[in-house]
Amino acid sequence: MSVNRQVLLASRPQGAVSEANFRIVETPMPSAGEGEVLVRNQWLSLDPYMRGRMSDAKSYVPPVAIDAVMVGQTVGEVIESRAAGLAAGDMVLTQLGWQTHGVARASDVTRIDARRAPASYYLGVLGMPGITAWFGLREIGQPRPGETVVVSAASGAVGSVVGQLAKSMGCRTVGIAGGKAKCDYVVRELGFDACVDHRAGKLHDDLAAACSAGIDVDFENAGGPVLDTVLRLMNRYGRVVVCGLIADYDAAQPYGYTRVRSILVNRLRVQGMIVFDWKDRYGEAVAGLADLLAQGRLKYRESVVDGLDNAPRALIGLLKGENFGKQLVRLA
Amino acid sequence: MSVNRQVLLASRPQGAVSEANFRIVETPMPSAGEGEVLVRNQWLSLDPYMRGRMSDAKSYVPPVAIDAVMVGQTVGEVIESRAAGLAAGDMVLTQLGWQTHGVARASDVTRIDARRAPASYYLGVLGMPGITAWFGLREIGQPRPGETVVVSAASGAVGSVVGQLAKSMGCRTVGIAGGKAKCDYVVRELGFDACVDHRAGKLHDDLAAACSAGIDVDFENAGGPVLDTVLRLMNRYGRVVVCGLIADYDAAQPYGYTRVRSILVNRLRVQGMIVFDWKDRYGEAVAGLADLLAQGRLKYRESVVDGLDNAPRALIGLLKGENFGKQLVRLA
Repeated sequence: MSVNRQVLLASRPQGAVSEANFRIVETPMPSAGEGEVLVRNQWLSLDPYMRGRMSDAKSYVPPVAIDAVMVGQTVGEVIESRAAGLAAGDMVLTQLGWQTHGVARASDVTRIDARRAPASYYLGVLGMPGITAWFGLREIGQPRPGETVVVSAASGAVGSVVGQLAKSMGCRTVGIAGGKAKCDYVVRELGFDACVDHRAGKLHDDLAAACSAGIDVDFENAGGPVLDTVLRLMNRYGRVVVCGLIADYDAAQPYGYTRVRSILVNRLRVQGMIVFDWKDRYGEAVAGLADLLAQGRLKYRESVVDGLDNAPRALIGLLKGENFGKQLVRLA
Repeated sequence: MSVNRQVLLASRPQGAVSEANFRIVETPMPSAGEGEVLVRNQWLSLDPYMRGRMSDAKSYVPPVAIDAVMVGQTVGEVIESRAAGLAAGDMVLTQLGWQTHGVARASDVTRIDARRAPASYYLGVLGMPGITAWFGLREIGQPRPGETVVVSAASGAVGSVVGQLAKSMGCRTVGIAGGKAKCDYVVRELGFDACVDHRAGKLHDDLAAACSAGIDVDFENAGGPVLDTVLRLMNRYGRVVVCGLIADYDAAQPYGYTRVRSILVNRLRVQGMIVFDWKDRYGEAVAGLADLLAQGRLKYRESVVDGLDNAPRALIGLLKGENFGKQLVRLA
């Protein structure tokens, strides 16, 4: 294989993302320079934050440039190394983005142990989503035993871990997900106490029924009307972990939140988080999550599409909530 | 004087408060029972929270009942005592509400020292508004020297203290107020670094110019479009102290906040507060504020209307931002 296949950002979406916002190209196979490795990517992670990177609105990191390779975390195999400590055959976690191959500096590469867990897990339960759940819930949500914890996008890569962690901390755990299949999975497979289908058309009543003692901690992945409804049910001194606002990413007009007064009345603490803020402590989270996995106390599901060319459609589906579990693209 | 004059809540406002929501009555003069004092009120405090108490929406305290005396903090003189430790002539702080006289249990009365400061100050800079500013800024805002602190309703009872405290902590202090006269007062008299007139029609541009290094701490008394605009300018890891949302109190339809995404992107901490949460520590704040007052480092302004019958109109004006400094009603 002498070419590298790439997905570029062709244009910025106005409102919902479409396949026309991407362009697939083939470029010559790169080679590793001094201190670098050439990697054949096996797995590409798709995540909601990518929608933000496609826009040029101010955010926590700069946008992807037009005609640049779409960003994303990848797991792959080193096929050529000019870096000390890394050899052909090593499995590595990198930020090579939406392409079949790529060159990375050794300092931007993390070697993974594919015997401890499948390589793809390092993009999910043992990767950024799992680490996000770990720190967001423990450090910002700070749930106490017996409290009620609500998690939106509960069947997703972050939400599924949050709920299982909360359950292991002795909390009543209530998910919010889209559709009966996801809700069934969240309760039966993941062990949440309840799950509310936000597509059933009576979110407030259903959530109030599932949270009869109110909500103490909300781990927010959805935003929009889901968050607004949660705000109505928060208990005094409750905490809202603002991890994702998917509903806002794709909207041409931002959602207008009408329940902000609950922050005052109930003395809520509403706090935004990005996993990078705990960069120095990732190892702590990975060790804790790997322990739970090894004990069979953390269930995890992947949603896989095959081939780089299907990545745009898979991201569009992810942003609409069509995935079921951690969304991955198999590249090799 | 053998009658007690009272203002009752006659009906709940739909949208803006009107004088028709109140009724003035005369009732027989009450007398003190065992363990009680009869007080002639001298000063009634008017505060934005009263708007909330007129509605029956869920809040942190129950609403005022229809035909009950409007709630409010008062300062007055004991004219009859049947309680140990309290004597006729003592000046006391009570919660007797909108009436010329009232009977209070000794446990609901705080004796004040009218030599340390004028009696009315115990309703303002040394009372709930001052204590709110003290704890809200220090414990939730947590400004560090050199940071930029924004205060809405900056000429008001809470805001004026917040800004002066922030200045004394080494912060750049920027007020938001309605109209040129208030802005001039905030800068020239209170010593804020700048003040932006939200009525001038270009709040975002004016605030951005006044906060060229962004906003680190927002002490929010206004809410609505003011808060939404502040959210656009918050710096990473900024803190928003949600103390009041006056813009929402009077609105028939709650304001739709469109800049909630800033909480995520900038990892803001947005936290509601009520002064009651520090009930056990009021003395600490009053001592600190009295010290600053004695040193001439805390300026304070009152807006006084005469006579109980003018209280409804004064509250309506307060909710529209027509007052200038701490709003009081002189009762005797």
